[in-house]
Amino acid sequence: MTGTGPDPHDRPGPAGREFFTTRTVAEALAGFRPSRRTTAETVRLADALDRVPAASVTAPHALPGFARSTVDGYAVRAADTYGVSDGLPGYLDVVGAVRMGTAPPPDVGVGPGRAVSMPTGGVLPPGADAVVMVEYTQAVLDGTIEVVRPVAPGDGVVRADEDAAPGAELVPAGRPLRAQDLGMLAAAGVTCVAVRARPRVTIFSTGDEVVPPDTATLRPGQVRDATAVALAAMITQAGGEPLPGGIVPDDPAALEAALRAALTASDVIVISAGSSVGARDETADAVSRLGPPGIWCHGLAIRPGKPTLLAECAGVPVIGLPGNPRSALVVFRLIGVPLVRRVGGCTSAPAEPVVRARLGRDLASAAGRLDVVQVRVRDGVAVPVFGLSALLSVLTAADGYVIVPEEATGLDAGTEVDVTLYR
Amino acid sequence: MTGTGPDPHDRPGPAGREFFTTRTVAEALAGFRPSRRTTAETVRLADALDRVPAASVTAPHALPGFARSTVDGYAVRAADTYGVSDGLPGYLDVVGAVRMGTAPPPDVGVGPGRAVSMPTGGVLPPGADAVVMVEYTQAVLDGTIEVVRPVAPGDGVVRADEDAAPGAELVPAGRPLRAQDLGMLAAAGVTCVAVRARPRVTIFSTGDEVVPPDTATLRPGQVRDATAVALAAMITQAGGEPLPGGIVPDDPAALEAALRAALTASDVIVISAGSSVGARDETADAVSRLGPPGIWCHGLAIRPGKPTLLAECAGVPVIGLPGNPRSALVVFRLIGVPLVRRVGGCTSAPAEPVVRARLGRDLASAAGRLDVVQVRVRDGVAVPVFGLSALLSVLTAADGYVIVPEEATGLDAGTEVDVTLYR
Repeated sequence: MTGTGPDPHDRPGPAGREFFTTRTVAEALAGFRPSRRTTAETVRLADALDRVPAASVTAPHALPGFARSTVDGYAVRAADTYGVSDGLPGYLDVVGAVRMGTAPPPDVGVGPGRAVSMPTGGVLPPGADAVVMVEYTQAVLDGTIEVVRPVAPGDGVVRADEDAAPGAELVPAGRPLRAQDLGMLAAAGVTCVAVRARPRVTIFSTGDEVVPPDTATLRPGQVRDATAVALAAMITQAGGEPLPGGIVPDDPAALEAALRAALTASDVIVISAGSSVGARDETADAVSRLGPPGIWCHGLAIRPGKPTLLAECAGVPVIGLPGNPRSALVVFRLIGVPLVRRVGGCTSAPAEPVVRARLGRDLASAAGRLDVVQVRVRDGVAVPVFGLSALLSVLTAADGYVIVPEEATGLDAGTEVDVTLYR
Repeated sequence: MTGTGPDPHDRPGPAGREFFTTRTVAEALAGFRPSRRTTAETVRLADALDRVPAASVTAPHALPGFARSTVDGYAVRAADTYGVSDGLPGYLDVVGAVRMGTAPPPDVGVGPGRAVSMPTGGVLPPGADAVVMVEYTQAVLDGTIEVVRPVAPGDGVVRADEDAAPGAELVPAGRPLRAQDLGMLAAAGVTCVAVRARPRVTIFSTGDEVVPPDTATLRPGQVRDATAVALAAMITQAGGEPLPGGIVPDDPAALEAALRAALTASDVIVISAGSSVGARDETADAVSRLGPPGIWCHGLAIRPGKPTLLAECAGVPVIGLPGNPRSALVVFRLIGVPLVRRVGGCTSAPAEPVVRARLGRDLASAAGRLDVVQVRVRDGVAVPVFGLSALLSVLTAADGYVIVPEEATGLDAGTEVDVTLYR
């Protein structure tokens, strides 16, 4: 970058250069305007796990749709069992049997003094209002049973609309579909569901030093693009579809052209910028020419991750990440993942795994800045993994991270903290 | 089921019939013998998220591979900066500049009294042992800078092997790959990785009442297969590959034949059994004829989910789930998901999201039985969602579940409990 552009050292200092619009993480999260959501598309139930319903889905009919026995036993009129006991059993005539998966035979009903043999899940025959468990009955004569426990109306029975009334909401809009949600939709005969399209997130890498991961031998000064594949994974986890933008040469016109070409095919654009100040400036220049409203944040009050750029161009959110892979991944987790979820229509994000742990040593922090500290967790103790923000190994060694909020000037060893665990 | 088989009411009572080998959940988890793991296969990094490395992957060379500047500034000999300050700056001759992505020019080195202009990420030139930040320098004459802060050797520099030494472990075997792990592998030029094949889990549904989810209109007594699609989703979440076994007629010979045909193509078999006692007996009969060692658990000390059958046939673990969809999903989450992970070589499962909450009301439980109570969580209070185990809506209404362990006879309202959240 410095090879093609002017010497970055000739530029004004940091305050004037790039941090004239610094935001907190909360401001950054709130700052993307309520932008477009992706359109709806229809997917089969087998492909719908974690997809976000575009609208709530309601029950087309009652579920299970018929009064159903919950036990193996005998369908009865509850009144016929009142007062029975081991010492004073009631006697009922068994007038038929219900088979699984079919209606009771037309001539089979439960009148006074009568009972019908029932499998679990069978259709309650006309006249019956309860099912007595087989364990509380005994066959005494051919066609007659003793009943030794009373039942109340409704005992041993699922009502026809007890799992869902017609029109009841089966799954809400905006909450990614879980395993049991898919089961409920299947039970209702809903085999396709309208979901938000996965947000298309185009990933660009810049920097003259950056080469593709499959580069077998590096020349001095080259580094393989570690950030793009990790960003793609996080985008997938957030319900998005990562699109490879590739490595763009350190040429402002080339970067602008690549970004402009990606605008129409992207719901979000992410730029993993070169690490030098000059590279960051060129990224900002290219983004600022993409269209209004443009860049609204030139720096985040976060460590690591300060040199982050946030913009909206022609309705598309643009995130310019720091050049250090570790900083880039920290910022994308805190800013990019929620944004991708929101663009994908998710209003109820799945919970992250969090554990409480005691901090293994003091953490220093500056007031007004949010610190993201990588930690290992052992026996309830969160031990910080220290290292330069250029080091990816700090992230791979970590089990999760601790956030030291803006208002804190540090945390003492022994403090109980929440560790958000990676998964 | 009762339509084709003998009347289930003619059978011996529960103790003799099916619960002669009851296990706790912990015993069930430990009870599957150390069985085969799936074989290794090679996948591209872009497809490797959440996959389980078959072996640890080590660094083929040092990373970043060259001593690298972490700041924009000047490469120097640290000794040349000792004692400098704002009032007593040091003066160094700038003898060249390092460009991103290339080695320093052959004639550029740092001798006493000399400095080289550096971008963040540039290669440290010969002779330099530190980089002083541009903020602590000032150009005073053409080719000369003032330095106003001292640096120690190593300041502003990442060592050539600081991210990984040659041969260092980049990712361990057995832990599903996370976003940053993929980034680290990319940085090392590892673009393919040997992972365990996804365990193939064949799902069978049985029960004469069960019809496919795309059945538009149900006849009385029929229910759509809600369990299979939900199980498939949970298998996917556990890293497995769900294989549809379909709905098998309530015919013991047909079930045995279907199971036998699936044995060689399955790493795990799951049977969502019919809900009646007769259906469960037929499942047990079919499984017991598949091969040694056969069934080793005829019931789980859990609610819901007691009528669970666990077996190993010809080396393949077999789980016979209860007929009620809700019970089936609860048991599969506690027993099946960890089993699928283990067969897939996972020795370090991702953490589940768990929140602490106060119990909203008393929960009764029997000692010796583990209860799985579905709850909604609102404002730190876990409110149980009650309902029959036949109701799937109890699961879809829940945010997560609370476990009442075997040794407890209940939990009082107000007790602090861990809620495992669905996602």
